[in-house]
Amino acid sequence: MEKVFNFSSGPATLPPEVTERAAREFVNYNDCGMSIFELNKAGGEYGKIAADTEKLLRELLSVPQNYKVIFMQGNSATQHSAIPLNLLTGHKCVDYIISGQFSKNASLEAKKYGDVALAATSAGASPAFSTIPETSRNDFRPDADYIYICFNNTVYGTKYHYIPDTGNIPLVADMTSFLLSEPIEVSKFALIYAATEAGIGVAGMTVAIVRDDLISSGKTGIPDVLNYKLAADVVNSKSKAPLWSLYMFKLMLEWIKERGGLEEMKRRNEKKASLIYDYLDGQSYYTASVDKKCRSMMNVVFCIGESALDAKFKKEAAAEGLYNLDGHSSVGGMCASLYDAMPYEGVERLVSFMKRFAQENPKLDT
Amino acid sequence: MEKVFNFSSGPATLPPEVTERAAREFVNYNDCGMSIFELNKAGGEYGKIAADTEKLLRELLSVPQNYKVIFMQGNSATQHSAIPLNLLTGHKCVDYIISGQFSKNASLEAKKYGDVALAATSAGASPAFSTIPETSRNDFRPDADYIYICFNNTVYGTKYHYIPDTGNIPLVADMTSFLLSEPIEVSKFALIYAATEAGIGVAGMTVAIVRDDLISSGKTGIPDVLNYKLAADVVNSKSKAPLWSLYMFKLMLEWIKERGGLEEMKRRNEKKASLIYDYLDGQSYYTASVDKKCRSMMNVVFCIGESALDAKFKKEAAAEGLYNLDGHSSVGGMCASLYDAMPYEGVERLVSFMKRFAQENPKLDT
Repeated sequence: MEKVFNFSSGPATLPPEVTERAAREFVNYNDCGMSIFELNKAGGEYGKIAADTEKLLRELLSVPQNYKVIFMQGNSATQHSAIPLNLLTGHKCVDYIISGQFSKNASLEAKKYGDVALAATSAGASPAFSTIPETSRNDFRPDADYIYICFNNTVYGTKYHYIPDTGNIPLVADMTSFLLSEPIEVSKFALIYAATEAGIGVAGMTVAIVRDDLISSGKTGIPDVLNYKLAADVVNSKSKAPLWSLYMFKLMLEWIKERGGLEEMKRRNEKKASLIYDYLDGQSYYTASVDKKCRSMMNVVFCIGESALDAKFKKEAAAEGLYNLDGHSSVGGMCASLYDAMPYEGVERLVSFMKRFAQENPKLDT
Repeated sequence: MEKVFNFSSGPATLPPEVTERAAREFVNYNDCGMSIFELNKAGGEYGKIAADTEKLLRELLSVPQNYKVIFMQGNSATQHSAIPLNLLTGHKCVDYIISGQFSKNASLEAKKYGDVALAATSAGASPAFSTIPETSRNDFRPDADYIYICFNNTVYGTKYHYIPDTGNIPLVADMTSFLLSEPIEVSKFALIYAATEAGIGVAGMTVAIVRDDLISSGKTGIPDVLNYKLAADVVNSKSKAPLWSLYMFKLMLEWIKERGGLEEMKRRNEKKASLIYDYLDGQSYYTASVDKKCRSMMNVVFCIGESALDAKFKKEAAAEGLYNLDGHSSVGGMCASLYDAMPYEGVERLVSFMKRFAQENPKLDT
């Protein structure tokens, strides 16, 4: 099998060093004679892996001491429910900024539990969601329990170029597809979460970093498996992440650390993103509609604009080992996800292919 | 590394044929150049694996056509929430039979959402929960939305020896640690579920088999990730099982089918259970307190009765490759889980060790 490059937005490509190490530990973990899948969750190994993972994450992100690290089962949708259920403690009102599919889904879920207002949206941009809404403190209701944003919009290829000023209101950010791609200032947020399947591990878990005061009270009457206070007891939680997902996340953290941490990831990711965005900016065959200041380094969205050619592009790319370039089903076109694990070589191969395809496949209307 | 036997109740032992096959497909699934972890969940592979898994499960269990098969993320605790949230549609009252730790947990969760009555319990048995409560139709409130039981009690080593007659009231059964260990008559139940980590796969998912009429209405206002109607759309569900967990479950189903299906599993499991129970019944060093007619074939609970000897037993057993014989932390003593994947040889080795240990370690009070 020839080397392939997987541009899927999630589950996403993993470094070969990680999958190969995991494969070695697969049947016989730590020379214990058992697969890691077979380790008892009540045993000490879960606690040890969880503690190591938390330590690495705190180190890489410089997580302040007044934040809890939580590893929960499930995915982004699980957090869409958990966040309002846990955080609507005051006036039960909350403001959402809608910058794409996932923030919209999150706001619809929150409406089941409280008074949800739309603080800002980029739905009206042309094309829709091709930019990030600008906001100021005046856009938020002063009695809101929290403000919600999606920091990186995988489907639309946008990323927040600023951190909204919400004053004393807790800022909650979905950082799926972004976390660990560059340094962030955790203290600017009250809660950050990411589904690990998008570039930093495998499916089955989300990691959340939550400021103490948001969970100290402990909500009652909500499902145990969505309760942050219970989940903060990582080892005894009923909603704890599967050991395997946690382990793969740990291997990714180690891989990042060994390569120099988040400053180095940022340098690599900027270099990869520049290669493809510079190419896109210097030609007219492909369209990249995203507002330049809001471009995601992780998810690069573009299209040819004729559906037959878009389809041909993806088919021929796959034949050359450039996989999963499909844009989200709601948008079409192409999306190339360039997570930490995507090597520069993969982007070079993609850009070469794009150049060749453009030459060989003139548009019908030109 | 010498061959070891893993008696953990969950995550539990898997057949070497399954872990070795999975290891082969780990780095390069189906010769596609990507690990199965890296396959896009929106891609066709998820749907194909889900369809194959459902077909196998329906065949092995003879699932009637008017039942949906659902693969959801999470574990038993997820279902403890999902069940009342989805099924408390009528009088919002429900009857639970408490036969151990997990049915108690489930009833506490249900109390958040409705009027929960205790229909029967074996808490008062001596020792507690060493039998299964007998019930008749008169024990249930006629307006209950459902009756809940835990079919196999992992912690206490008991199993239902009969199917409660609930008349027209839907019977809901937690079959974690039991499903696929022998044939069952699905039509006697309205809903069956099992966390796959206990003997039929890995952590990260539960399988549920739900009668159509229980989900056709579709509840609103509950978390999307706990909604059965949404989950029944296996591929598009927001709460869908991680592909990896689904895939490992499929490998287990294939392994069971290749060996002759559930009749053959029952024959093997009876043979393994008889070996250890027959030994226990013929000696007095170890105590096995479970009511004989309610003995679990999957989880064999016993103790020496002196905590120092119990601890020594587990330590020396582990030194001989007999792992994870710890009873649940709330009970102590020993629990040997003999799921489908546990070979007869493992039980032979355990019983030989038990005999030798009893000879070499007289009790202090004898």
